[in-house]
Amino acid sequence: MSNVILVKSDFDRFSEWADEFRKHDILAVPWDDMARHRETVKYALVWQPEPGALASLPNLEVIFSVAAGIDHLKGEGLVPAGIPVVRMVEDSLTAGMVEYIVYNVLRFHREMPVYERDQTNRIWKPRVQQSAWDRTAGILGLGVLGSAAAVALHRLQFNVIGWSRNPKQVPEVTSYFGQDQLEPFLEQTEFLVILLPLTEDTGGIVNRDFLNKLPRGAYVINAGRGPLVVDEDLLAALDQGQIAGAALDVFNQEPLPTESPYWKHPAVTITPHVASITLPATSTRHVADNIQRHREGKPLTHLADLSRGY
Amino acid sequence: MSNVILVKSDFDRFSEWADEFRKHDILAVPWDDMARHRETVKYALVWQPEPGALASLPNLEVIFSVAAGIDHLKGEGLVPAGIPVVRMVEDSLTAGMVEYIVYNVLRFHREMPVYERDQTNRIWKPRVQQSAWDRTAGILGLGVLGSAAAVALHRLQFNVIGWSRNPKQVPEVTSYFGQDQLEPFLEQTEFLVILLPLTEDTGGIVNRDFLNKLPRGAYVINAGRGPLVVDEDLLAALDQGQIAGAALDVFNQEPLPTESPYWKHPAVTITPHVASITLPATSTRHVADNIQRHREGKPLTHLADLSRGY
Repeated sequence: MSNVILVKSDFDRFSEWADEFRKHDILAVPWDDMARHRETVKYALVWQPEPGALASLPNLEVIFSVAAGIDHLKGEGLVPAGIPVVRMVEDSLTAGMVEYIVYNVLRFHREMPVYERDQTNRIWKPRVQQSAWDRTAGILGLGVLGSAAAVALHRLQFNVIGWSRNPKQVPEVTSYFGQDQLEPFLEQTEFLVILLPLTEDTGGIVNRDFLNKLPRGAYVINAGRGPLVVDEDLLAALDQGQIAGAALDVFNQEPLPTESPYWKHPAVTITPHVASITLPATSTRHVADNIQRHREGKPLTHLADLSRGY
Repeated sequence: MSNVILVKSDFDRFSEWADEFRKHDILAVPWDDMARHRETVKYALVWQPEPGALASLPNLEVIFSVAAGIDHLKGEGLVPAGIPVVRMVEDSLTAGMVEYIVYNVLRFHREMPVYERDQTNRIWKPRVQQSAWDRTAGILGLGVLGSAAAVALHRLQFNVIGWSRNPKQVPEVTSYFGQDQLEPFLEQTEFLVILLPLTEDTGGIVNRDFLNKLPRGAYVINAGRGPLVVDEDLLAALDQGQIAGAALDVFNQEPLPTESPYWKHPAVTITPHVASITLPATSTRHVADNIQRHREGKPLTHLADLSRGY
């Protein structure tokens, strides 16, 4: 096997990656064995590599991000100059994100946290339910994941609108774009789904002003990146009732520190960055396809632009 | 308005029904005013009428059930002989059921109750996630609601199978039918969605033998009727780990009595019979259409067969 890929994923067992890559005739070597394979490694599949590590590989040709976002590859000495970086786009990642978004929108739409509290108190109290077609979900970030979530919510009969930095077209979704159209987007959004990439422009975008433009009692779902949100502002908006509930999968610091007020906030649901998980079985196909393209001299798919940030 | 309908719904305000019926040129009168309107009432829209009440209306022509199920109309003296009964089939009812089923299947699929317990203990612990396409949801009852739920789960990439008493065809769903095919259906079902009508044949169908045929660690979602389930058997299966979790919207006795062990069971999620709610705005259209058909001498749609039980 002439294709050697160095793998750094903090989530799955290395053996699973190795088994799946072997099916594609690719030899996976674990990150800790980098020294022994320094000369032979042509590809790297990484999540949060240490600075300087990738630059120490003399024959590295392509870097694959384990995640859809590439913010973990931005920073001094992380990516050697001239080496292309490929974003992760694969079926499991998309399916997982759609599930997480649909689950959480339905959870808030159907007031499930309220019924859970009622159950704790043995209270039987049916509540009048609004129809999905009378409510609006707003997707902040209409990339691969945001578009798939929008389609799934539309199929459940929600009104779906979207916002992105540049114009995007998604069937059945009213799209807004650019700073000027952020306000009309937010004013209608009862369920805000945050799926923006983290860039210099988007960090801290979800702050007090932003949250105050949502209708009172809106819900926030963050499955993008923690630093998109200003935590103090979200907590204040939750305490004031401006935001009725939040489902958070990503945080400014991960693992979420024990002392974070999010843990015990009654209107906050926490998951440990599992909304959408890259699975070896499906993602190695995406990587192998791209390696094949690269070897044939064809352009890589889902190439990231580090200067743009996604 | 020559069309007078008597309304008994325990959930919504009567004024909402009256407003919506007025749009269709139908005069709604409240159940408590029955005596004053006895002669003029031609139609009745009811949920759990008292025995003898409907028989006291000399000019009653059609009975409409507020619910999809008509088990609340079975019993001595509830429906006068020869008066047709129409089941409720309307968009809100279907959409609500799809939401409830999708929400609860995703909740179990994504181990959300586990993450909620982790949050209570400030534990950050990502878990490996199975793909929807490697898991099977089984719909028990493939009527209007069951078929719609099946389609929605299929779109989320679950394998979907169904069982009904008589053969049914739903696109993308492997259908089983009859007593003989119950076992192969149950053996594959990791997420059991109970949507059968309650009849003499189906009461208590979900008993110990039935539950033991499911794979160990299966999940049960009952959005049909409470008496389909033998409570002691479900509780025992939950305690033994044969069933890993249950989402229950309907119960043998409603409201669920305070002393029921379901309330505090850690693997049980309770909602107060709100999975699917008939909304006046949409259901009055269905009723008005059928009244129109009746007046024109056309056959009624969604006519129930009281002897069959649905």
